[in-house]
Amino acid sequence: MIAEQVVELNYRYAQCLDDNRLSDWPGFFTEDCRYLIHPRENFDARMEGYWLYFENKRMLRDRVVSLLEVNIYPIRRERRFVSNVMLTGRDGDTWLARASYMLVHTDNEGRSSIFSVGEYRDRIVESGDGLRFRERQVIADTFLVPSHLSMPI
Amino acid sequence: MIAEQVVELNYRYAQCLDDNRLSDWPGFFTEDCRYLIHPRENFDARMEGYWLYFENKRMLRDRVVSLLEVNIYPIRRERRFVSNVMLTGRDGDTWLARASYMLVHTDNEGRSSIFSVGEYRDRIVESGDGLRFRERQVIADTFLVPSHLSMPI
Amino acid sequence: MIAEQVVELNYRYAQCLDDNRLSDWPGFFTEDCRYLIHPRENFDARMEGYWLYFENKRMLRDRVVSLLEVNIYPIRRERRFVSNVMLTGRDGDTWLARASYMLVHTDNEGRSSIFSVGEYRDRIVESGDGLRFRERQVIADTFLVPSHLSMPI
Repeated sequence: MIAEQVVELNYRYAQCLDDNRLSDWPGFFTEDCRYLIHPRENFDARMEGYWLYFENKRMLRDRVVSLLEVNIYPIRRERRFVSNVMLTGRDGDTWLARASYMLVHTDNEGRSSIFSVGEYRDRIVESGDGLRFRERQVIADTFLVPSHLSMPI
Repeated sequence: MIAEQVVELNYRYAQCLDDNRLSDWPGFFTEDCRYLIHPRENFDARMEGYWLYFENKRMLRDRVVSLLEVNIYPIRRERRFVSNVMLTGRDGDTWLARASYMLVHTDNEGRSSIFSVGEYRDRIVESGDGLRFRERQVIADTFLVPSHLSMPI
Repeated sequence: MIAEQVVELNYRYAQCLDDNRLSDWPGFFTEDCRYLIHPRENFDARMEGYWLYFENKRMLRDRVVSLLEVNIYPIRRERRFVSNVMLTGRDGDTWLARASYMLVHTDNEGRSSIFSVGEYRDRIVESGDGLRFRERQVIADTFLVPSHLSMPI
C-alpha cells in the first residue's frame, strides 16, 4: 500500500519536471525539507561538498523563481527514468526509501543522451493530502558540471 | 487493479516488439484505433506534422505486411524501457494513461545506444479478453530521421 | 502477489550489485543454481557459446572471492535499470520470469554510458526465507568484451 504510493510519488515527481512544470516542484516537499545534490564520492566518503544544498521549502521556491526569471537558455527536453524504487525502513513517522534515476537530455538538435545517473535517498512523510519528501538526497554517479545544474533532478 | 493491468499492457507491448514478433503488434489495438508518431515540438505547439499516422487497425496490419516483405536490412536488436506508467483520467469507457519510453538499438557490431526517448499518451479500453489501445500517441523527444522508422515504437 | 515478489527480487538483486556488496550476490541463488551470460545471437540460434557459465552456487562464491582478491582495477560505479519484469509461466515448483536490464557504467572521469543491455530469463523458486534464482540467464544484446566481465550482471 505505502510501497505503491511511494512509487507513484516518484513517478509524479519525474513527470512534473519532465513536463517542465517547475512551479509545482516545491509542492512535493514539506516546509522543513532538505534537498541536496552531491557526488557519489563525497557521499561514500561521508564528506561534505554539495553541488546543491537547500534546507527548507522557501529555498526551493526561490530557486524556481530565479530559474523562471533568469534562464535565457533554450529549454532542453528532459526525461527521467526511475527504477528500483524500494522502501528501506521507517524512522518514527518517516519512511525511508531509495530509487535509481536516469536523466536523459535531448538537445536542440534533437540528440538524446544520458545527462546523469544516480540514486535518490528519501525521507518521506504523510501529509493531509498525500506523501511529501522531508528529505530528498540526489547522489549522482555522473560528475556534473555544476553550472549545468539549472534544473532540479 | 486497472493500474496494474495498464502496466502489464505496456510491458507486453514492449516485449512483443523487442522479441520481433511484429505480426502480433496490431493485436494490441482496437479496430477503430489511431497510432501516431510525432515530434515533441509539434505536439507542444498543437501543430499537425506526423512522422506516422495510422487511423485504423487495417493500416497497422498493412504496415506489418510491408515490413515483413520488403525489409531487407539486417535486423537490429531493439529493447524498450518503460517507466512512469500512470493513469491520468477517464473519458466515458476509455482510460487515459501516460508512460515514458526509451528505445535502445544494438547495431550489427553489437554497440548499444539510445535510439529514441519520449512519451506514450494512450486511450485504453477493455475488450472481451483484456485491454486494448484505442489510441497510442508516440511523442518523441528525440528527432528521428523518418527513414529509420521501420519498426513501430 | 508472487508478481510483486519477483519485481522485488529483481530490485534487491540490482541494488546489491549497484551497492558493490558482492559477497551478498550468491545469496540470491539456490545451491543447485545455474548462472549464465551469453550473447543474444547464440541464444537465438540455440547455440552453445557462453561468456560465463556457473553451474552451482560454489562457483558463484569462488568468483566473488577471486573478484575481491585480484581485482586491482579502480572500481567503476555501476547502476542497473530493470524494466518489463513479467511472469511467463510455471514449471512444477518453479516460476518462469523475464525482465529487461540496462547496465550503466560511470568511469573514473565521471562519464556515464550504457555498458550492456539485454534480458534476464529466470527460473525462480520459493525458499524458507523468500525467492531464489534456480537459474538466471543473462542474454546480452550488446557484444561485451569478455575481459570486461569482472562483475556479474
